[in-house]
Formats: sequence, structure tokens, C-alpha cells
Amino acid sequence: MNQNDPSDIVGPHHYRNAEAMLAHGERVWLRAAESGLLDIHVDHESNDRLIVRETGHEFTLLCSCSYLGLNHHPRIIEGAVTALRKTGTTALSIAEIRVRLNLLVELEESLRDLYRAPALPGVSCSVLTAGILPLIASGHIGGAGGPRVMVFDRFCHFSMAYIKPICGDESLVLNCPHNDLNYLEDICKKYPRVAYVADGAYSMGGRTVLEGLLDLQNRYGLFLYFDDSHSLSIEGPRGEGYVRANIEMNPLTLIVGSLAKGFGASGGVAMLGDERDFQFLYRNAGPVTWSQNIDVAATGACLASADLHRSPELGQLQEKLRRNIDYFDQRFPTRFSGNGLPIRLIEVGDEDLAVRLSEELYRNGYYCSAVFFPIVARGAAGVRIMLRADLETDRLVSFCNTVESLMVSA
Amino acid sequence: MNQNDPSDIVGPHHYRNAEAMLAHGERVWLRAAESGLLDIHVDHESNDRLIVRETGHEFTLLCSCSYLGLNHHPRIIEGAVTALRKTGTTALSIAEIRVRLNLLVELEESLRDLYRAPALPGVSCSVLTAGILPLIASGHIGGAGGPRVMVFDRFCHFSMAYIKPICGDESLVLNCPHNDLNYLEDICKKYPRVAYVADGAYSMGGRTVLEGLLDLQNRYGLFLYFDDSHSLSIEGPRGEGYVRANIEMNPLTLIVGSLAKGFGASGGVAMLGDERDFQFLYRNAGPVTWSQNIDVAATGACLASADLHRSPELGQLQEKLRRNIDYFDQRFPTRFSGNGLPIRLIEVGDEDLAVRLSEELYRNGYYCSAVFFPIVARGAAGVRIMLRADLETDRLVSFCNTVESLMVSA
Repeated sequence: MNQNDPSDIVGPHHYRNAEAMLAHGERVWLRAAESGLLDIHVDHESNDRLIVRETGHEFTLLCSCSYLGLNHHPRIIEGAVTALRKTGTTALSIAEIRVRLNLLVELEESLRDLYRAPALPGVSCSVLTAGILPLIASGHIGGAGGPRVMVFDRFCHFSMAYIKPICGDESLVLNCPHNDLNYLEDICKKYPRVAYVADGAYSMGGRTVLEGLLDLQNRYGLFLYFDDSHSLSIEGPRGEGYVRANIEMNPLTLIVGSLAKGFGASGGVAMLGDERDFQFLYRNAGPVTWSQNIDVAATGACLASADLHRSPELGQLQEKLRRNIDYFDQRFPTRFSGNGLPIRLIEVGDEDLAVRLSEELYRNGYYCSAVFFPIVARGAAGVRIMLRADLETDRLVSFCNTVESLMVSA
Repeated sequence: MNQNDPSDIVGPHHYRNAEAMLAHGERVWLRAAESGLLDIHVDHESNDRLIVRETGHEFTLLCSCSYLGLNHHPRIIEGAVTALRKTGTTALSIAEIRVRLNLLVELEESLRDLYRAPALPGVSCSVLTAGILPLIASGHIGGAGGPRVMVFDRFCHFSMAYIKPICGDESLVLNCPHNDLNYLEDICKKYPRVAYVADGAYSMGGRTVLEGLLDLQNRYGLFLYFDDSHSLSIEGPRGEGYVRANIEMNPLTLIVGSLAKGFGASGGVAMLGDERDFQFLYRNAGPVTWSQNIDVAATGACLASADLHRSPELGQLQEKLRRNIDYFDQRFPTRFSGNGLPIRLIEVGDEDLAVRLSEELYRNGYYCSAVFFPIVARGAAGVRIMLRADLETDRLVSFCNTVESLMVSA
């Protein structure tokens, strides 16, 4: 018989604990499922009009990251179609660092021009993060000098937090209270080489503290890694996103972003601060190296979207989004009002109220998600809203009216 | 001044060591670069005819994982185009577990039918692995009873080995000599709950030891996790791949595979042994949950390819591939001869000879990669070949002739 105590094999849980995560996470998911807000299958007419085939129920998506509505832009759809027809293949199915299509090279050049930085494409933003962060930890990105202490902002996106154990096998991993520059400076004083990992615009609202971070970079050589997925395309004259629009690139800064949110296509991109890193990462960044990259259709969609980012239409869409955000802020003032980002939280306090509000909204034709502890603090439950440029004014006004009347009657 | 010894922050390097990996890896890459075999940009006419625009140099790809040539099948290209035109969007940009397109649901159903198992799609096979393996380690996949010891076959693909540190935060991680059933049985005797992580068909040639593993599963409740990317589509009456074609699914078995290799499209799929895991993984499998899934174009390409897998054409393509493999084996007998898989190694022994052979082959119009230590044992350097169904007989014959004459003259 087996004499081992099974607890012998339990890991150290330094960075994660699935059991504990699931205790919280499953509760949130199953609550959404009970409310009929999970696993909804739809046909697409527009982001304002999704249709459940079986019931005919129609609703507007207020929880999509397609902030500019580019996911259904005819030029982007046609970009994908043209690329498929022109190349006559879905992909070459060989590591891109060996042989790659001129079409993908064109995209690299196009994104390099758009973001004024070497631009490495990837099959998703989180795959780029999974490939790159461990090489920052080991000291192979960000200049010679050995490993770096990796400091993760406590609110940084799951896609970065998920890679902590891999980084932790290369160097010391620490957590930092959200946007806490003093805490971060203390770490910079204590260790010679430090990297800070954060969102540019946070997925639950708000921004990073860019100015203070650049000051720490200047004074301590702090490496800055940003995922700016939630502001890419919607900010900056060419949609560079919040961080890129407000800094000059340098070898101690790296920005990744999703090309499947505001950008309206698929995949992800890493804007590099060091020319040398482009080939180095193509060769060595884990899944970037040996896994599939964005395929031909996605490359074509991205090329079309990049062109659109160079046209006056981008500014017009950004302006439309801004008007929708302003209108919403006027109707529902929150602590994020006026920050220009599309993610908003309508706080109702009580968890059950939040769930019921999201249920009622769905019944009335609007999909948005109830959020509560541990996503937000206890007693701060609410409904998360994501605004879009292609949200029609009528829809937005009647959505706000519906929320208002539901909150009064609650 | 800083008083800390920088070595304080060096990680334990239990599972990885970028410095050591790069010492080997960069040598291989830079050698390939010197030979002009890296970073080649091409236009696509067919897998047999890629063209370097600047020089007009044409060559045949003998290093593509598109084993059936489906990457340029007109029906698959049109599948992608039709999906884009029909849905009018690239994606909804919302977590699929919340709201997803009927098109993606159709693909789930189609793959479920093809593989006779619940089938979870993902943006890539390695993303599925990154999401699922930690939940096997923590004991949340594979039945109640707590964490499992994770045993990685020493030859398992990078995409699985990469996740060791994440698994290691949840449970004990061990390495197993390649296909060593005795070693594995000893671990099964020592610990009550064990999972084994392996390739079905290995990317450097050869197979897993399926029968022996199933025996261990029966006797010890061993969980089996396979990446069968290199045999998917090319084996099995419906292209289920080596493992799925030879076992019945059960809650202690999970198979992942790439849909971007033999399958000819994009993304990846997980064949699940437990119906309950489908929703559970959609909700909780890390990047599967919060990252983008396969987009509309890829979904359309996959749907078309799945249909093709149900037609007689699949058998015809498998047969064509088999004929090419047989011809090659006859011309260049190796230890893998007769195993039916498309990956072959032409061993030349000396590293420089291998590099020069791959250079000369490229000059003669054939791209294949030189492999040497640490990818293969010292003194066993050679050239890796990947055969395809769409490799024209003339090309294959003249390729074999070229290799022969180059080896004689060497």
C-alpha cells in the first residue's frame, strides 16, 4: 500500500492557488449562469443587435472590447478576404523566424510605422506576455546585468499574473499595491535591477501612473512593461494607446497590446524599445517561437485596420466614442468620470441588487456583466459597462433610461 | 548605496534557466542565420513553390507541418471567406463563455462529432495547454482527490515543458526519461495521484508508448495528457490522430492538438474525456477564459476542414502522404522507417556537414533545417525532413537525388 501522505505533493502556492481561485471564481460564474447570462449563443447583425436564434431575443452588447466597432468594419473584413484570396493559403505552418510570408512582413512594417517602434506580432497579446516576461526576469531583455526583480501591480491583468511562476523560476517576484509609487521606489532602492509589470489602462477602469513611473525609470533604471490593450486604438493620433502616445520608447520600456479589441482584428503586438529585441524575441520568446503566429486572414485584417488607423476615420471614431462616454458620465457620474476611457462601473452596493440589475438589463435588451467581490471590494458590487463608438445614440439614451428606471424601482 | 548582492534575486531554476537555454539555443539559431536559412521572406505559390521576391529564388518547403497540404485547399480558404462574409465581423471581443457566435458553437459541435468527444477550441494548442495543465496539477480536472504529481516526458514539446513552473506551484513536478514505462510505474507506486504529460507523435520523430500507458492507467488511475499535433488529421479514419484513433476517451485522458498543422486551418482543440470539463474549462482555464479564442475566419476555415475530414478526400490525402513517406523510407532508411509518420531525420553525424547539407539543399531549391546538439545527441547531427501529401512526386524524387549526390560529394 501507498505510505505517502498526499499532502507531500502540494505545491508551495507562492503565486497561485487554483483551489482558492476557484472558490471565488466559480461562485461568480455560476451566479451569472443562474441569471441566464452565461453561454449565450448568438447571430451577429451588429454590436447593437445580437440575436438568440432559438428565442428571437435581441440585445445590445455593452460588454464588448471592440471599443471603436472596428470588428465589423467592411474594410477590415475585406482585408482578411483579400489576404486569403491573394496568398491562397491559411498559413505556411513553419516557425516564422525561419520562413514567413511577405504579407506578415508587411504587417510588421505597417505596425512599426504606426507605433514608431519595432513591432512583433503574436497570435494573442497573452502569448506575447507569456513569451517575453520570463526573458525580462532572466535579464535577457532590458540590457546586460543579470536578472531583474519582477514587480507585478496587484491589479495587473490575469494574463501577466499568470506568468508569475515562470518568472519566479528566473528571479524574485514581488507584488505591488495598485499604482503605489512609494512602494515601488522602495524596491528600486533595495535592488539594482527591477521591472514593473502593469496595465496602461486597467480592465476594471482607471490608468497607470505614467509620469511617476517614468520618473522612477529615469532615477533607478526601472524597466517598464505595460499591457495597454484597453486603450490601444482609442487613444493617440494613430491609436498608439495611452502609454505609447505619452512616452518615447527606450530600451527599458516594452508595451504589448491586443489587436482583437479596439483594433478590431486578431492577435497581439509587442512594441519594442530596442531594435535588437525584434529578432531575439522571434527566436527565443517561448510560444512566440514555436507556436503559430497570426494567420493569413488575421494578417490581412490587421493590415486593413492599420491603414484605417492612418486615415481621418480613426479620429472620427475616437470622437464618437468620446461623445458616448461623455453622455454616459453625465447620466451616471462615477469616480472614473472624465478619464476618457470606455470602461465604467455602475455601483449599486449590494451583490444581489447587482445581479438582478444585470438580469433585468438583459431582459430589456442589454448585455453587461454584474461584478462583485473579489473583482471589486465587498459592498461595492455593480454592473460593468463598456462603451463603444458604434453604440447608436438612441440605444445609449434608452439604455441609460432603462438603468435609471430599474435602479429607482429596485 | 545598494548593499544587496544581486545574486539574492536569482530564481531557483527548478524548471528552466534562460541563460543555459540561450547558450544552446542561440548557437543553433545563429548558425542557421549564418547559412542564410533564417528570416526568409516569401510569396506563396504552393508549398512546393515559395518565392523570394528580391532574388527570384524558388524553393520547396520540406519543413512545413501542413502534412496534408490543407493550408492551401480551396474549400478551406473559401470556408474562411464565407464565414467572414456571412457573420460580417472578425469576432465579438467578449469572453466566449459569456456570449459567443453560433458559428463557433457549430465548430464545437462539428469537432465533437469528428473526435467523438467534447471538443474545446482555443486560439492555439499551446494556449490550451497553458490553461489546462495547471488545473490537472491542482486536481480540478481528472476527478476529485486533490493535486496530482505531474510527470513530464523528457521529450515532450516545449509548449508543455514551458508550463512546468505554473504546475509546480500547484503540485510536485517530475521529469521522466523518454517513453520509460518502468520509471513511470515506480512513480505511480509511490504517489496515489499521478498525471503523465507527453506527445502522441513526437516532433523529432517516433511515438508515445500508448499500450503500456493505458495499462498503467488501468492499474493505477494514471491521468494521461497528450499533445497529438503531429499526427492529427494524418492518422485515423476521420483524422482523429494517433492517440484518439487507438483509445476510448475516459475522464482520465485529455488530448490536445493544433488545428494549424495537418488540419490546415488555425487554432487548437482539446478533446475532453469528461463532459463536465467543457464548461468548466471555458470558465476557468486561464488564457482560454480571458484571452481571445479563434476568430471568425479561423472558425470558418476549421468548419470547412472538419467537413473535408468527413469526406473520402481525407483518406486519399492520407494515402498520398503514406506513399511519399514510403518512397522516402525506401531511399533513406532510418530508425523511424515504416512508422507512418511524416517526420524524418537524415543523419550525417558531423555538425558542420549537417549545416552544409542544409545550405546546399536550400541553394538547390529545398528548405529543411539542420538539427544538432542539444536537439539531437552529440555526433548525431543531420537534416530534419517533413513530408507532405501535396509534395509532387517529381519534386520528391529529385529531392532524394539531390540529397544523395550532396552526401556522396561531401
